[in-house]
Amino acid sequence: MQRYEHGGNIYTGAPVKIDFSSNLNPLGMPGEVKQALTENPSRFEKYPDPDCADLRRAIASYHGLDPEDILPGNGADDMIYRLCTVLRPKKVLLTAPSFSEYAKAALISGAELKYHTLSEADGFAVTDALLPDITEDVDLVWLCTPNNPTGRTVPLPLLRRVADRCEDLGIRLVIDECFSCFAGQPSCTSLLPEYRCLSVLDAFTKRFAMAGLRLGYLMSRDHDLLRRLREGGPCWNVSGPAQACGLAALRDAGPYMEKARRIIAAEAPWLRENLTSLGMKVYPSEANYLFFRSPVPLLEPLREKGLLIRSCDNYPGLSEGYYRICIHTHEKNEILVDALREVLHG
Amino acid sequence: MQRYEHGGNIYTGAPVKIDFSSNLNPLGMPGEVKQALTENPSRFEKYPDPDCADLRRAIASYHGLDPEDILPGNGADDMIYRLCTVLRPKKVLLTAPSFSEYAKAALISGAELKYHTLSEADGFAVTDALLPDITEDVDLVWLCTPNNPTGRTVPLPLLRRVADRCEDLGIRLVIDECFSCFAGQPSCTSLLPEYRCLSVLDAFTKRFAMAGLRLGYLMSRDHDLLRRLREGGPCWNVSGPAQACGLAALRDAGPYMEKARRIIAAEAPWLRENLTSLGMKVYPSEANYLFFRSPVPLLEPLREKGLLIRSCDNYPGLSEGYYRICIHTHEKNEILVDALREVLHG
Repeated sequence: MQRYEHGGNIYTGAPVKIDFSSNLNPLGMPGEVKQALTENPSRFEKYPDPDCADLRRAIASYHGLDPEDILPGNGADDMIYRLCTVLRPKKVLLTAPSFSEYAKAALISGAELKYHTLSEADGFAVTDALLPDITEDVDLVWLCTPNNPTGRTVPLPLLRRVADRCEDLGIRLVIDECFSCFAGQPSCTSLLPEYRCLSVLDAFTKRFAMAGLRLGYLMSRDHDLLRRLREGGPCWNVSGPAQACGLAALRDAGPYMEKARRIIAAEAPWLRENLTSLGMKVYPSEANYLFFRSPVPLLEPLREKGLLIRSCDNYPGLSEGYYRICIHTHEKNEILVDALREVLHG
Repeated sequence: MQRYEHGGNIYTGAPVKIDFSSNLNPLGMPGEVKQALTENPSRFEKYPDPDCADLRRAIASYHGLDPEDILPGNGADDMIYRLCTVLRPKKVLLTAPSFSEYAKAALISGAELKYHTLSEADGFAVTDALLPDITEDVDLVWLCTPNNPTGRTVPLPLLRRVADRCEDLGIRLVIDECFSCFAGQPSCTSLLPEYRCLSVLDAFTKRFAMAGLRLGYLMSRDHDLLRRLREGGPCWNVSGPAQACGLAALRDAGPYMEKARRIIAAEAPWLRENLTSLGMKVYPSEANYLFFRSPVPLLEPLREKGLLIRSCDNYPGLSEGYYRICIHTHEKNEILVDALREVLHG
């Protein structure tokens, strides 16, 4: 029924032993989250709190914001679609490549797309060249940092210049930080008090390896926007398990995230080096995944070995040969490198 | 942030000991569902199957339909909003009273509402008087059977006349059967093969007391409509726990539902008799809830006793004094009747 256009397709085709196509935390789901799922399941008989009051308080405290600045949703994608349903933008500015749901949601709400194409020569970095593309006829700008699928962060000073321009021109700016927890750069939530035009999107999906539970959230100081988004869709969109697990995940997130970042910091250069020595062109990435170009097709040969990676040929701005892999723990990364060696050298 | 306009508000105000405002199965969540939640929680790390392939097969087999006839969603309300987002109806016909989300979703997508007011003198039954209100300028008709909040079923021969008229005039007809599993009348899914204009909405929420998990589904033979709805919103809208619990609930649903229907069949007349003897006007209901008018305000006095019922004064077509209560097991129903007696007779 549905064409799979994202990573994580472990449901059709040959069985997947290790999934390198979804960029989840290499540590897997925290113990606290598993406990929240299994404790007293009868409590999920009841309708969930449509206000997500406890969860909003916990997320706010995690980011140093107010509960009123937070709107949780059924995954970050719920917020992407609500933004388009409610704002009904006429023209949406996107980078190419970037996460495809921004474009899908915009098209469904009747918007025209304007692509700012990132250059291969720049390693697909977002640069000041974006600024002149933020024109008056644009209603909504999407930026993803670190960008999906490239892993490049947008530097905070540039984000500030983008936000200045959007604020001046009355354009909504949404910065998707779903992968920022793995990057070194501080969150751009620090910009929220200054820019009413700005919303920041984040999720539990990757940070806490909770993709199955569907929990994302939008942060903004524009409380009227959050109210409209809240009222612009189903009332009980965030499930009981998602709320309970979100609360549990945030309870002791510090050491867990520190450990995850240590793994990624150690594994990223190791994987990069090995991929490069196998003839891949590996682009700069600050996220928990690597983006590279391969001289030979990889998807099917790896799938035959039970390994799933993300082919990026369906991203606007990319073509055949581009791939994205999630950084796992060393043991799993070794399995991938060994498999790649076999594919390339027989 | 959100004004509570539905039943189930156990999150604000005085603590609720028994919730009579959400119309869930009196048996509570089946053991199989609890087991599915607690078994191997790590599996919910992964992205859920966006196709819901296993779940669609199980739902189809439960209703005697094909998996292609089924589209699961994040609760029935997800489907209500997607229908409006995708179909963008200009004029929507609703009964007054009925479930308020039909109107909310229609208004958000820019539609005009046309109300067919049900008459108190008819006990709020849907009758042939609905037919002349189905006019050419209407794009979408919502019918709820048993109706929320009245509990009245729409007789199958009348549903057929409504469907005939909609089919003739090219109007979409959606029949919400979320409570039909508790009523005696056979499901109108039997009409699906005959009417391409028809979609039937159902959910696990009430049937299996799974409100916290968010799982509903739309059934139709118009596969092109289901495809458009599928593509018209977020891709991973049905969570992993919802899919696993839905599968578990359907595995041995027969005896569980039979037992629930026996309880309701025994308790409904008992509650009706007691409410009537306390001076309430109780309307006919074939659902797992009763709808009545009280000579005195009930919401606050019952809430003070830890009992939550649904005040229906915010339904279009109703006014102050109308209430809805869920039929629970006898012990709980006795607590409600005793509390009502105290409120009325001091």
